[in-house]
Amino acid sequence: MRILILGGDGYLGWPTSLRFSGLGHDVHIVDNGLRRRAHREAGTDSLTPIVSLEGRVSAWRELTGSTIGITTGDLTDWEVVRDVIGAFAPDAIVHYGEMPSAPYSMKDRDHAVFTQSNNLVGTLNVLYAMRDLAPDAHLVKLGTMGEYGTPNIDIEEGFIEIRHNGREDYLPFPRMPGSMYHLSKVHDSHNIHFACRIWGIRATDLHQGVVYGIQTEETRRDDRLLTRFDYDDVFGTALNRFCLQGVIGNPVTVYRGGGQTRSYLNATDTLRCVELAVMHPPQAGDYRVFNQVTEQFSIWQLAELVQKAGAEVGMEVVVHPIDNPRVEMEEHYYNAKHTKLLDLGLRPHLLNETLIGSMFAVIERFKHRVIAEHILPKDRWRPPPR
Amino acid sequence: MRILILGGDGYLGWPTSLRFSGLGHDVHIVDNGLRRRAHREAGTDSLTPIVSLEGRVSAWRELTGSTIGITTGDLTDWEVVRDVIGAFAPDAIVHYGEMPSAPYSMKDRDHAVFTQSNNLVGTLNVLYAMRDLAPDAHLVKLGTMGEYGTPNIDIEEGFIEIRHNGREDYLPFPRMPGSMYHLSKVHDSHNIHFACRIWGIRATDLHQGVVYGIQTEETRRDDRLLTRFDYDDVFGTALNRFCLQGVIGNPVTVYRGGGQTRSYLNATDTLRCVELAVMHPPQAGDYRVFNQVTEQFSIWQLAELVQKAGAEVGMEVVVHPIDNPRVEMEEHYYNAKHTKLLDLGLRPHLLNETLIGSMFAVIERFKHRVIAEHILPKDRWRPPPR
Repeated sequence: MRILILGGDGYLGWPTSLRFSGLGHDVHIVDNGLRRRAHREAGTDSLTPIVSLEGRVSAWRELTGSTIGITTGDLTDWEVVRDVIGAFAPDAIVHYGEMPSAPYSMKDRDHAVFTQSNNLVGTLNVLYAMRDLAPDAHLVKLGTMGEYGTPNIDIEEGFIEIRHNGREDYLPFPRMPGSMYHLSKVHDSHNIHFACRIWGIRATDLHQGVVYGIQTEETRRDDRLLTRFDYDDVFGTALNRFCLQGVIGNPVTVYRGGGQTRSYLNATDTLRCVELAVMHPPQAGDYRVFNQVTEQFSIWQLAELVQKAGAEVGMEVVVHPIDNPRVEMEEHYYNAKHTKLLDLGLRPHLLNETLIGSMFAVIERFKHRVIAEHILPKDRWRPPPR
Repeated sequence: MRILILGGDGYLGWPTSLRFSGLGHDVHIVDNGLRRRAHREAGTDSLTPIVSLEGRVSAWRELTGSTIGITTGDLTDWEVVRDVIGAFAPDAIVHYGEMPSAPYSMKDRDHAVFTQSNNLVGTLNVLYAMRDLAPDAHLVKLGTMGEYGTPNIDIEEGFIEIRHNGREDYLPFPRMPGSMYHLSKVHDSHNIHFACRIWGIRATDLHQGVVYGIQTEETRRDDRLLTRFDYDDVFGTALNRFCLQGVIGNPVTVYRGGGQTRSYLNATDTLRCVELAVMHPPQAGDYRVFNQVTEQFSIWQLAELVQKAGAEVGMEVVVHPIDNPRVEMEEHYYNAKHTKLLDLGLRPHLLNETLIGSMFAVIERFKHRVIAEHILPKDRWRPPPR
């Protein structure tokens, strides 16, 4: 298959590109280096040293003989999107190419407007290019479980059967996202759903949980193939940051309360989920949502797991609650359904102390690269009154 | 009260400004002339001749002694929004300031991207300016009933009680909008809801039906106070266009099927609804949705009403089905609840032959201005394959 990976230089976009290339598919990456630039501007960096996109791709060719194509360009630039989709003629478009950070989007007005316009316009461009130039291609879009928020009912996969006043319909699951970034994904979902209904595009919207992990089968082969590992206040995510804090002897910082429950999955499982979605495209006109998660944890549970895994390797991990920079419920109901990917054959790698131990080992190798002053949160959802 | 009217030069923004000014409030208009410019570019125009915004405001001052302030500027320009909200210190912000046309948004990629970015960024700017400079102001935002689409269950006012697997929650009503424009309003609704939840802003989102009518109490006083009347393929709406087609002896064109049912209200009632919303602000942090409609009709029912009203004044009106340029169900369930504005005191002016007769009379006065080649739809939701 011809597989276009938008955002193929990113944390998951890169290993996804390797996976498909390794499976013998023809892979082409589009990336504008947004994440690398944002890190440079903020004075932060990936814990793992990563080579340039060109360097990564050469290393992969050297090791496997397989070529991955590159287009350096911005999805908000219509000509870039039109030209690459027109020329590459993809069977599947895996779309990771968005600004992915909630704290970034909540910094101030500029960052909120950038996040929402960037994600919205990029995705609209992809939809129009598909309509006009690749009407049979399958869009596999990375969304987020954060679109749903934390409703007091079970979270279904994208749609819910509603019975009301003696009638019923199967309608989009209500969305209550918790940041300007998460809102941008809700906007995308509505736009993609519309494009499927009106133009007959086929799309899978992967509402992904929080991803953890560093290595995949392919990135382990050579350090030049490493993917990024972000632990900073803007791009870092819960479990990855906790593991890093444990290794460098900092307290694991949970946002006060710690009852915040979310869905999680291993980076390895992300790759398998995307592969399953690509290999089983929906019918033309179908918009389907998969909740791309394998299990759920509260922040306290995660912190305790890191503590236990630390104890097993003789590392004392202290857990320290700090003020919550976000506005969110700290105790709530949470139960997210996730059967559709299991039905397609997903066999989850669940979180355990061994897995955390292997993350510790990689972090240990690179801990001399930690920039300690950029670990704790700086951006508050509700700024102090002036 | 100090009332800021965004889009105060428009079809409803202008008479709303007059209404509040006439009631003794301090009114300030922000407008960038978007609609006038779009008409010039398309070679179309309002049926009613309208004077410049400055001319309208002078005429009003001459007649009433009341001054309405003007800022000419674009809501997507942060400095414009920041400066006017900071300087005027509004108690209420009535927000009509968006690109309001579904056919415009469906012309092509450029128009879709413009419509969505324009509406999204303008409203984000308003929300950030409120957060920082007018945290107690009340945002009264014009949304649309088109956000809901045509679900097979009763449409509630913004939120719905959902019981599911033995639990329940009161959640945003699912949205299935039918154009890139309607999608932009859905994006706004999610963004505004978030701003209320996170920052404690108070907002009323008026999900308005299709508005008909020409004159209001204030615009009748002098032709220089007339508001626009659009009947063209881009900015015209169903009943207004049907009345015009009747008067100029063209067939009334219903989109094949004609069973498309929507909510409607009189322009006079719009003004009263906005006034009721402004006079009864919600608590800080509350986001409420009012379905701003008074009754519902199918397209066939509207066409027949125009036919009957025509017969009463000796005018023969022919109804002619044409291909539907949109992608929408032509037979469907539709029942939209609308009690919240009635509870606040709205007494609806329902549609009848007399009211249509009075629209005929105004159209008759200006029918020499009709640009006949711009009445029928040109833009198709689903373009023919290349």
